[in-house]
Amino acid sequence: MTGQEIKEMDLQYNLHSWAKQGSLHPMVITKAEGIYLWDSDGKRYMDMSSELVNSNVGHGNRDIIEAIKKQADLFCFLSPAFALEPRAKLAKMVIDRMPDTMGKVFFTNGGADANENAIKIARMYTGRHKIMSRYRSYHGSSFGAGNITGEPRRYALEPGIPGFVKFFDPYVYREAVSFASEEEATRFYITKLREQVQYEGPDSIAAIVMETVTGSNGIIIPPKGYLPGVRKICDDYGIMMICDEVMGGWCRTGKMFAFENFDVKPDIVSFAKGITCGYVQLGGVAVSKKIAAFFDDHVLSCGLTYSGHPLACAAGIACLNYYDTAHILEHVNEVGAVLGEIEEGLKEKHACVGDVRYIGLWSAIELVKDKATKEALVPYGKDPDGVMSAIIKKLLAKGFFTYSHENIIMVAPPLIITEEQLREAMAIMDDVLCEVDAMIAL
Amino acid sequence: MTGQEIKEMDLQYNLHSWAKQGSLHPMVITKAEGIYLWDSDGKRYMDMSSELVNSNVGHGNRDIIEAIKKQADLFCFLSPAFALEPRAKLAKMVIDRMPDTMGKVFFTNGGADANENAIKIARMYTGRHKIMSRYRSYHGSSFGAGNITGEPRRYALEPGIPGFVKFFDPYVYREAVSFASEEEATRFYITKLREQVQYEGPDSIAAIVMETVTGSNGIIIPPKGYLPGVRKICDDYGIMMICDEVMGGWCRTGKMFAFENFDVKPDIVSFAKGITCGYVQLGGVAVSKKIAAFFDDHVLSCGLTYSGHPLACAAGIACLNYYDTAHILEHVNEVGAVLGEIEEGLKEKHACVGDVRYIGLWSAIELVKDKATKEALVPYGKDPDGVMSAIIKKLLAKGFFTYSHENIIMVAPPLIITEEQLREAMAIMDDVLCEVDAMIAL
Repeated sequence: MTGQEIKEMDLQYNLHSWAKQGSLHPMVITKAEGIYLWDSDGKRYMDMSSELVNSNVGHGNRDIIEAIKKQADLFCFLSPAFALEPRAKLAKMVIDRMPDTMGKVFFTNGGADANENAIKIARMYTGRHKIMSRYRSYHGSSFGAGNITGEPRRYALEPGIPGFVKFFDPYVYREAVSFASEEEATRFYITKLREQVQYEGPDSIAAIVMETVTGSNGIIIPPKGYLPGVRKICDDYGIMMICDEVMGGWCRTGKMFAFENFDVKPDIVSFAKGITCGYVQLGGVAVSKKIAAFFDDHVLSCGLTYSGHPLACAAGIACLNYYDTAHILEHVNEVGAVLGEIEEGLKEKHACVGDVRYIGLWSAIELVKDKATKEALVPYGKDPDGVMSAIIKKLLAKGFFTYSHENIIMVAPPLIITEEQLREAMAIMDDVLCEVDAMIAL
Repeated sequence: MTGQEIKEMDLQYNLHSWAKQGSLHPMVITKAEGIYLWDSDGKRYMDMSSELVNSNVGHGNRDIIEAIKKQADLFCFLSPAFALEPRAKLAKMVIDRMPDTMGKVFFTNGGADANENAIKIARMYTGRHKIMSRYRSYHGSSFGAGNITGEPRRYALEPGIPGFVKFFDPYVYREAVSFASEEEATRFYITKLREQVQYEGPDSIAAIVMETVTGSNGIIIPPKGYLPGVRKICDDYGIMMICDEVMGGWCRTGKMFAFENFDVKPDIVSFAKGITCGYVQLGGVAVSKKIAAFFDDHVLSCGLTYSGHPLACAAGIACLNYYDTAHILEHVNEVGAVLGEIEEGLKEKHACVGDVRYIGLWSAIELVKDKATKEALVPYGKDPDGVMSAIIKKLLAKGFFTYSHENIIMVAPPLIITEEQLREAMAIMDDVLCEVDAMIAL
């Protein structure tokens, strides 16, 4: 099929996510290798968002492809009720990479159903029904995951589920007060959270769910001591601490899991994306040994046909092995340091860059109309003039593929990107930010 | 790894669905081909439930495996925002197999998220929030799908989502009144449903969701005229008719979709399982042309990372092609007729068989203590003495693999089963039912 034929057939028969279908102009991609994508006209792009922050090892990874082919010849799918080698092995590999307090894994198809099951498990284990989560968050768009989500994509799921409560994020850059130190910020946020827990009734709260580092809503990195503070609240009241590591897990932040950067051990961890890098869909929930033991004699009321899909587990085994053999963590820390330096430079240079936030190879560039007032380039939940999408298109025209959210540009390349490739990409970003500077100067 | 090692590792690290983990003894399966499974001791079983009623083409289908391998070499995953050949092609193939009123597809990972998105779409399109569904139903176990589910597996999701309302099923065999004809039954159920719609407020009801033929909850086949009656209620009040074809779709009933047996056209169809037979996970929602057009200028507030996963779409294309080239529909109708005859014979012969219900190669054998009183072999929602699991184990020991739900044994073999294989399997069923007869005679 020609590119034009693919595009026409796609638009005639497919519904695309988060969009008015009548105004779509999807790129036709016909080839992908490493950090690169090619469209049907042969134009090459650097995949600077790792697709949806999931292609950690890039495209065309031979280890994962060969593992898929080998497993496909054995069996692609068998029921979750059976004991199967790839499922057993991968579950062990996941737990081996977690803190020693963690016990067992329940596998799902992706991040949304990982979060669905995480909150179900917390409710079953505690016998409580309330779930607390944050405003600037995205946890998926099914009813459970979408109701813990705080950002506008949850509105389509309202009226919401009773007992799902939101709290504020440690979004220091845009807080209504300013802080002298990270410690002071942490004191503020933890005091307010404890107060809210009191008001909600601690004995009714099953879980506090957080993206360890907020993803699409702006790479909000918790201030020093914040996560241990949340951990303390959870411990004081018997609340389960759920870390959503769907984007942040599997080497993205320079640690295997984002929570390792902050010296905490969650009770429940949801994961997806980087466990297979999307080669086959996979997600899951890891639970502590304590929770696992509870379900020895209580029914785990969770289930899905494709829990622990063998083909997906085979891909996961190959993917986790690749992280080790290719020394991905070391690489992320080296190249991530370069990304941080470059972004600090961009912040200093460009009038339109209000803030940059980065950890490992995961970062956000937050655009403003005015550095002093911090007025966002587009208002919350709206972009009526398509300002942000125009910026994304400028990047794309120069071969830099990524996406934006609110006034934020995501920079999260595959973890195999070289320093040279990164510098080449960020030079494009620099150019485009010059154009944005000119725009806001008008 | 040996079978024992696999089993131990599985039990140490995996959480299994719908079970107390401490009392599990999972079978270790190491090989699967056609309608057969082999455990790690080399014992062979006939897969008489098609795993979870999804392995329609059986195991080891070379067409699908080769398609997966070929696509894996091209690209396994690319973002849902792109136009891609396998995704475009499969969407067209799905719509081509639906009534001519259907327009577009939104792909998901499985049945639960297909149903989640089906009800989201109905709410967005109608601007209404209530969702009606039936008591004897299973639609998935995430919060949205689990709240339309009527059977006990929804309890873990309560307190439920506001506006999710249940109605009674056309479960003629166990109705509190008896009917002289199918038409009389239909009059009763449709009158009651219309009455309930009136009480709920028709203008607030977005959708009526049904498994076209109830699956795990007992293969409840709607009486003649029932589904057109529901269609009429939906038309009268602008309510979306959603048919859940997750189990019933893709040739299972002897038609491409179960609703074709009943002369109705739904507004929204959710599907999964048989579209890839689980080789790679895939589900989706098909919507009418009217609904599709609505989203030309309204945002479709749905999305998931793996929507229209290319590897899954490649498997789906091969699978749908296989249904055609192997003349699966004709085969299901031929062998399905034999299954029906055999089951009528079992009902006549065995004191423990209260009812048999079958359509295509999808059937249920409902066990009773007493044929006259219809007292179920186990009470609703309970099996404290493990009576049903003992029967399933007896079947298994003789090489017949399936599962039970309440007092019902599922018989739903791969659609490639031969008449000879079917007769061999059902002879085992006959033997085991003799033992159950003896048990209830005590």
